[in-house]
Amino acid sequence: MRLSQYYLPTLKETPAGAEIISHQYLLRAGLIKQTASGIYSWLPLGLLVLKNIENIIRDEIGAIEVLMPCVQPASLWRESGRYDDYGKEMLRIKDRHESDMLFGPTHEEVVTDLIRNTVKSYKDLPLCLYQIQWKFRDEVRPRYGVMRGREFLMKDAYSFDVDYEGALNSYNLMYKTYIKIFKRMGLTPIGVRADTGPIGGNLSHEFHILANTGESTLYYDNKLFELLESEDIESLKSIYAVADDMHDPESCPITQEQLNVSKGIEIGHIFYFGDKYSKPMKASVTSQDGKNVNMHMGSYGIGVSRLVGAIIEAFHDDKGIIWPEAVAPFKVGLINLQTKVTEAADKIYKALKSDEVLYDDTDESVGVKFARMDLIGLPWQIIIGKKAVSENIVEVKNRATGEVEEIQVEEAINRFSAK
Amino acid sequence: MRLSQYYLPTLKETPAGAEIISHQYLLRAGLIKQTASGIYSWLPLGLLVLKNIENIIRDEIGAIEVLMPCVQPASLWRESGRYDDYGKEMLRIKDRHESDMLFGPTHEEVVTDLIRNTVKSYKDLPLCLYQIQWKFRDEVRPRYGVMRGREFLMKDAYSFDVDYEGALNSYNLMYKTYIKIFKRMGLTPIGVRADTGPIGGNLSHEFHILANTGESTLYYDNKLFELLESEDIESLKSIYAVADDMHDPESCPITQEQLNVSKGIEIGHIFYFGDKYSKPMKASVTSQDGKNVNMHMGSYGIGVSRLVGAIIEAFHDDKGIIWPEAVAPFKVGLINLQTKVTEAADKIYKALKSDEVLYDDTDESVGVKFARMDLIGLPWQIIIGKKAVSENIVEVKNRATGEVEEIQVEEAINRFSAK
Repeated sequence: MRLSQYYLPTLKETPAGAEIISHQYLLRAGLIKQTASGIYSWLPLGLLVLKNIENIIRDEIGAIEVLMPCVQPASLWRESGRYDDYGKEMLRIKDRHESDMLFGPTHEEVVTDLIRNTVKSYKDLPLCLYQIQWKFRDEVRPRYGVMRGREFLMKDAYSFDVDYEGALNSYNLMYKTYIKIFKRMGLTPIGVRADTGPIGGNLSHEFHILANTGESTLYYDNKLFELLESEDIESLKSIYAVADDMHDPESCPITQEQLNVSKGIEIGHIFYFGDKYSKPMKASVTSQDGKNVNMHMGSYGIGVSRLVGAIIEAFHDDKGIIWPEAVAPFKVGLINLQTKVTEAADKIYKALKSDEVLYDDTDESVGVKFARMDLIGLPWQIIIGKKAVSENIVEVKNRATGEVEEIQVEEAINRFSAK
Repeated sequence: MRLSQYYLPTLKETPAGAEIISHQYLLRAGLIKQTASGIYSWLPLGLLVLKNIENIIRDEIGAIEVLMPCVQPASLWRESGRYDDYGKEMLRIKDRHESDMLFGPTHEEVVTDLIRNTVKSYKDLPLCLYQIQWKFRDEVRPRYGVMRGREFLMKDAYSFDVDYEGALNSYNLMYKTYIKIFKRMGLTPIGVRADTGPIGGNLSHEFHILANTGESTLYYDNKLFELLESEDIESLKSIYAVADDMHDPESCPITQEQLNVSKGIEIGHIFYFGDKYSKPMKASVTSQDGKNVNMHMGSYGIGVSRLVGAIIEAFHDDKGIIWPEAVAPFKVGLINLQTKVTEAADKIYKALKSDEVLYDDTDESVGVKFARMDLIGLPWQIIIGKKAVSENIVEVKNRATGEVEEIQVEEAINRFSAK
């Protein structure tokens, strides 16, 4: 993509009210723009990151995609008993006929309604459906950009099984899938035992990534990292790993030496809640021995828009964002330092895939170009100066390490065409 | 995809209340399920069609993708002057702080707010942004399934130009792009001059597809079809082509012989409205001669979820849907007629791409399998009977024509791998 034909409204100054670094960089690097308190428009560069995250999830999730509506009828939430419990975070709506509706903060009721009308036999199970859909939680004080926004994008999956054993299997499979998904994004996910909150049930884990600016404090066995490496889910689930609300120094079973304490940002949450919804909503199937049984359900969330902020919190420096390659909006930024090297730069740009390269072909100063490219944080920069013409050489810069390498034009083309 | 592992809840009976054929087939073929009046959940098969439509649009649109929020602040609509005008179709919401919000029925205000804060110079223009986003119109009587739903998916694009000539150019380019998009979906789009309604402005065209069940009557010069073939936009825009609300037999400039009259379904609408929003909302740029000028804007909609219904209205028979290949959820349906040919069927399935083939590997009767495959309307069926084992031959059926051809297994694999 040529920057001169793109829409990338970066800002020189940090906007007032952006307290944390991800919020500042999201605004400054032209990824989002606030439309109302806690409600954002996603600009082209930010939307590319969102989509990369979505596509990694789609690729790994191993469930069937559906799409449920944003606006839900209150009647379903009255059936489950959550309508009155949910409080002011639920955005309640009256339609023109004065029917009670709401902008869904989650979809357990809608998916249970779907399934109870279409799945009748144990033969149709196990079943796991997921969607990637915008949700709304009317936070009393929206802040921290997309980290605690009101309208937010979530991947939510729902599993249906005929019995507890099946449900536990679905839960463990999703635990393992989450580890894979987050690792593929370049992240180190820490799974901690968690409270189930308003979703309900008795088995739940949160997934966090480590970041000094995280809102939670995590306490976990330092063996966690090697277990993560081997993806040994049974052991991962059984070692000591909790967030501050579940940590009690008195009863902590491991030694101080074994205990890691780090700040973390929550990026996912999984739940097993049995028949909490299937029972009141009468979502049952015929079991193998002919009985009518309520389905055992679990739900599994990943904060897709939140991840964009969380990744920035984990990967940045004082110049800007440093995207992990798997989620970067473009893999490469191309900069031409002088107008007389434009021909060489154009040639390299044409040899690469236009959706993987952002080519700063503007006539702005070198200083502006460098600062902007560092700010938006593409993993690689190809810098084209006069040596490109005289010696057929360009500079390749690694945004994360800052290392600069001089290589032949052809080698640069080969290296970044293969990526 | 193996049907035994999929989620395809088809119905034998036509559900009560589904008046038109697309609504009936959408429900019966397991593409959607109603969650509330005019509000639907998209099941796996329906979502695949939606995404195919989205991807054709993304591929052809030639604009930059953004994503604006569903929930908008009323303040922006007060600025444009539309908040009070819009009436009961707007879903109005009060948040927990009693702020007036709404679920966006369209995004002219939000995009104008975005642009006025980020685009300052004629050098940044022309600019055309688009999104594919869920919208809400609180229809007094939702009906006809996704054809007149309340929550619906739309592609909306917005163009910004420094003057009228630029804006007209953007408008004509989008007219041409719409023809391409709809033709690529296998449709014959009829562009008619139209009223601008609540969007405003003085230049507008609707795009319809022909369907006997259409809600509009179209009057158009029979030269239209050859002009469509040549994509001669200037002539297409200037020939006589209007919907019933703009047709006056008295003043119609063409002869009865030249005049075609057909039923049509609206699938897109484009508008040029000058400074209707940029003026009250102060969205101006510095022009080449240093003046401050309001941007000239246009907006361009395609009803993405509506198209799913409209395509079914145009392409079906009494057995079910007949998807045009470009939007079909799978290209091929594979049916094994007996359990003893399962091995042969499995082999063929494995040789094809799993996201292009739906393999009915269930143990249901041949009659059920045939009826279901016809109902869901995949363009091609590969039918595997005993000849697959004895003579290495399968039947290939064209869903649209009903023609059946006997071919070698290897030829079937080659033919449908290449697609």
